[in-house]
Amino acid sequence: MRVALGVSYRGEAYKGWQSQPGGGTVQDELEAALARFVAQPIRTICAGRTDTGVHGLNQVVHFDSPVEREAFSWVRGVNRYLPRDIAIQWAAFPGEDFHARNWARGRRYWFLLLESNVRPSIQAGGVGWTFRPLDGDAMRDAAARLVGEHDFSSFRSSECQAASPVKILRDIRIEKRGAYWRFEFDGVAFLHHMIRNIMGCLVAVGAGQKPPAWMDEVLAARSRDAAAPTFPPDGLYFVGPTYDDHLNLPRHTAAMDWLP
Amino acid sequence: MRVALGVSYRGEAYKGWQSQPGGGTVQDELEAALARFVAQPIRTICAGRTDTGVHGLNQVVHFDSPVEREAFSWVRGVNRYLPRDIAIQWAAFPGEDFHARNWARGRRYWFLLLESNVRPSIQAGGVGWTFRPLDGDAMRDAAARLVGEHDFSSFRSSECQAASPVKILRDIRIEKRGAYWRFEFDGVAFLHHMIRNIMGCLVAVGAGQKPPAWMDEVLAARSRDAAAPTFPPDGLYFVGPTYDDHLNLPRHTAAMDWLP
Repeated sequence: MRVALGVSYRGEAYKGWQSQPGGGTVQDELEAALARFVAQPIRTICAGRTDTGVHGLNQVVHFDSPVEREAFSWVRGVNRYLPRDIAIQWAAFPGEDFHARNWARGRRYWFLLLESNVRPSIQAGGVGWTFRPLDGDAMRDAAARLVGEHDFSSFRSSECQAASPVKILRDIRIEKRGAYWRFEFDGVAFLHHMIRNIMGCLVAVGAGQKPPAWMDEVLAARSRDAAAPTFPPDGLYFVGPTYDDHLNLPRHTAAMDWLP
Repeated sequence: MRVALGVSYRGEAYKGWQSQPGGGTVQDELEAALARFVAQPIRTICAGRTDTGVHGLNQVVHFDSPVEREAFSWVRGVNRYLPRDIAIQWAAFPGEDFHARNWARGRRYWFLLLESNVRPSIQAGGVGWTFRPLDGDAMRDAAARLVGEHDFSSFRSSECQAASPVKILRDIRIEKRGAYWRFEFDGVAFLHHMIRNIMGCLVAVGAGQKPPAWMDEVLAARSRDAAAPTFPPDGLYFVGPTYDDHLNLPRHTAAMDWLP
């Protein structure tokens, strides 16, 4: 039967999501735990691959299981075999043709950024850092120029395998709580490194190194050379995919309450 | 000259605060970094030692430096030599007789606890966990019975080196945000394992295994055998000491905005 799982993980110790021959990825850990639970090899498909060091709050995967179990048995049983920085949050049975990637209507990401003259410590690996004070209104002005359907070639890594550089970015929300900025990216799908490349540009604008209108130039250039350097991955969280409401798949996990 | 520093650290990777012959403690890392910065050995005294796995938000230390530097030079210079999970937050010069431990008027701790049927993942090592739903009013009732000056022998570890088991607990505040409980302990000084032992009892009351009035019995017994097992250290944060206002030492650090 087809099973869907919600997964939270801290990406710091892993070489990203996607399985590799040498192991060491989140998918490798998940599939090893699933194989122990059902005593057979399992291959999973995820809603959105994450890079090295990127975290997942409600990543969704699906797979076909040779055995039937109650929903919470999947959660408790598989978590027993997962390392402590990865945990299944929920299990559901949205139908035999559910597809975690193809059925996703959108994807959300958070980028969390510490603005301080002191680097992170207790939250190292889980937050980006800028020692320059940032202007929120300037960043919001710049961000608004990216919302909509655009050719995002300027924000695309050379390794990107997407068929087209044209993507729909629905919204970028920028808020500050205490010393921490939260950038929320809401889109249909994202190019490889797209958010980290946008972050580099937004921080350049926020720090006053570039005016907000510069974002139009970067976008129009359709060239990676036009944009700022790629921001480090530490503060990037894949919040998760969204599906049609009638599927009733959970969109909230406890870890979302933890972060600023 | 006498220097005071505020230090934040994630305790997960360290054998507690206090220096050990084999190294591996937060004090060892701090003193090694200070020695590199001033090119001489430095010994520090802290406001409150923390155990293995316990975190610090605004630990305060003092030491006598053979060299004079501007306040922010201490921050930037020493952080360069510290591992990424430890960072100096501020430096100050509160006078030649300032003493980080003896001058502290009080100490605050937070215990952060995830209430969920799923264990922590992205916040593993930084939060405690209970799968049983907790009753906040019952815990507040039990906690109020501990506030004041008491013989806390029932909550004292056998390794405790304090001269007296009598301590003043000023307040315990218990709040919930999303899936996370925050227990704030405000006192003058604490016995070894005192907070983790109180946490074990509060969670037993919150889960309905014991009534709030049981806390009176535990306290009156003056015996470790009367209390619940010691809670694991993962969710424990030394928020920091408080000093007389006229010293103007910072009480807030950015990491305090990060946590629920």
